[in-house]
Amino acid sequence: MELVFLGTGAGVPSKERNVTAIALTLLQEQNSVWLFDCGEATQHQILNTSIKPRKINKIFITHLHGDHLFGLPGLLSSRSFQGGEDEVNLYGPKGLKDFVNTTLQVSGTRLRYRVVIHEIDEGNIYEDDQFTVIAKKLDHGVTSYGYRIIEKDRPGELLVDRLNQFGIPPGPIYKQIKENPIVETSDGKQLFRENFLGPSKPGRVLAILGDTRALATNHEFIQNADVLVHEATFDREKEQMAWDYFHSTTTQAAQAAIQANVKQLVITHISSRYQGEENEKLLKEAKQVFSNTVLANDFFKLDIQAHS
Amino acid sequence: MELVFLGTGAGVPSKERNVTAIALTLLQEQNSVWLFDCGEATQHQILNTSIKPRKINKIFITHLHGDHLFGLPGLLSSRSFQGGEDEVNLYGPKGLKDFVNTTLQVSGTRLRYRVVIHEIDEGNIYEDDQFTVIAKKLDHGVTSYGYRIIEKDRPGELLVDRLNQFGIPPGPIYKQIKENPIVETSDGKQLFRENFLGPSKPGRVLAILGDTRALATNHEFIQNADVLVHEATFDREKEQMAWDYFHSTTTQAAQAAIQANVKQLVITHISSRYQGEENEKLLKEAKQVFSNTVLANDFFKLDIQAHS
Repeated sequence: MELVFLGTGAGVPSKERNVTAIALTLLQEQNSVWLFDCGEATQHQILNTSIKPRKINKIFITHLHGDHLFGLPGLLSSRSFQGGEDEVNLYGPKGLKDFVNTTLQVSGTRLRYRVVIHEIDEGNIYEDDQFTVIAKKLDHGVTSYGYRIIEKDRPGELLVDRLNQFGIPPGPIYKQIKENPIVETSDGKQLFRENFLGPSKPGRVLAILGDTRALATNHEFIQNADVLVHEATFDREKEQMAWDYFHSTTTQAAQAAIQANVKQLVITHISSRYQGEENEKLLKEAKQVFSNTVLANDFFKLDIQAHS
Repeated sequence: MELVFLGTGAGVPSKERNVTAIALTLLQEQNSVWLFDCGEATQHQILNTSIKPRKINKIFITHLHGDHLFGLPGLLSSRSFQGGEDEVNLYGPKGLKDFVNTTLQVSGTRLRYRVVIHEIDEGNIYEDDQFTVIAKKLDHGVTSYGYRIIEKDRPGELLVDRLNQFGIPPGPIYKQIKENPIVETSDGKQLFRENFLGPSKPGRVLAILGDTRALATNHEFIQNADVLVHEATFDREKEQMAWDYFHSTTTQAAQAAIQANVKQLVITHISSRYQGEENEKLLKEAKQVFSNTVLANDFFKLDIQAHS
């Protein structure tokens, strides 16, 4: 499980930062990649990574501003050209259907795969065996969602010592015990999995927020996340400007992280007014409040280790 | 007058070539830039040139396929952000209005300038003091236009020797004579401009074609152009494929150039199947038919000298 920041700028692309897109690679977990936002030239950024567009099977759009959206028709179109055949599910605010349908239709784009568009509301928007995704409205003038990605707890380790105590030697049966609630041995004994597994391993939790003012009302939603991705469009001096434009400052993002007890903060969506060394100043501001902060640059990768 | 090839690839972007866009800089002529097509990430390509987005005041879309169109909403949006305030006129096939209006509306993009969208048909689509632009439908499965940009003839040089013969000494009156059909001297003489100007200087003619099969029916439209920009998606062996996909080969583009008596040919819209040295082979194929051919790479600039 890895986050790959494909674009970390705000509003307009610069030579230093492309507009927003974040890939969540779930290759080990389910051989797929999820995308969060898709600013213009996201497909171009992907050309410089090892991500295969055909493996992208879910795209979550936080909000419909162009710098988070305008790369979507091109990505969908090229994915088809590059051999993508599996269904893609899109999630985002109302208006997403009109955007996708019009752009694909006007351009005569015929995809080789099915696109399912979910115009979502707050709440549980997706669930499978491994993950649940919850959406919450933030504060950005237009509808802007945060996504909380919750990995389900995984079963604990097999307690080999205890199995030995019960006279069950290693063999294929160990795998069966791990995978089934009850297993019957060749001599008719019933083994209950719960007796032979250690404590279950808590799943990871990510919170990826769209553009937003940093508000206390977001804290519960991001509470205890292993990783919080929060915008920090402006430096700490520009609180008024951040408020006026429905954005956050470095310090505000870090305050949200500390108040919601997250483990790690990644700040992104950096205004193009900050160039080169000024980025270090931004990071320093956030770290003064919450030390475990990273400032994402384009192509920054964050490995998110499973809990043991 | 210069052509700047911002994207020279076909269908999907590659590391080597972006999708299609061509800038015609008219800085000396009218302090503006015209754009022909606007594939995704055209605004990103512009970041690597000296072109100012606020100077782009006309955008001609040849056809609505995504690789010629999907950069338009982002370019319009960033142009506003970057201080563009002058009206922009867009020209292209039916469907362009729906595309632009929907993408800007769904994304909540408010531009600081007026956008006028012209869904064109064949014929004279634009005219000012210096230029006429004519559109013609090509053969690409969907409506695809070629644009013929005709610079009007410019007045000839002032015949200073003849003015001297008539006893008119150099002074501000020379400028008046050049700019007005009739000028009256201080002693009441009427001077007719036509008597004091050398032969007028023929304007330049460009033909920029959208994607198309190379057909004889295009020849009249591109006849005698100083520069013909013609797609060459495939190599000369792939005539059948070019026909099936409504495209042209290198050789076909060159044949069009020679049959229509153009002065220079630029081939572009090169399939991403051709990488590195294979491009030289493509150019060689075209040059065997029409020697004054250039194969455009991204950021290739072609200066188009005025006729003397």
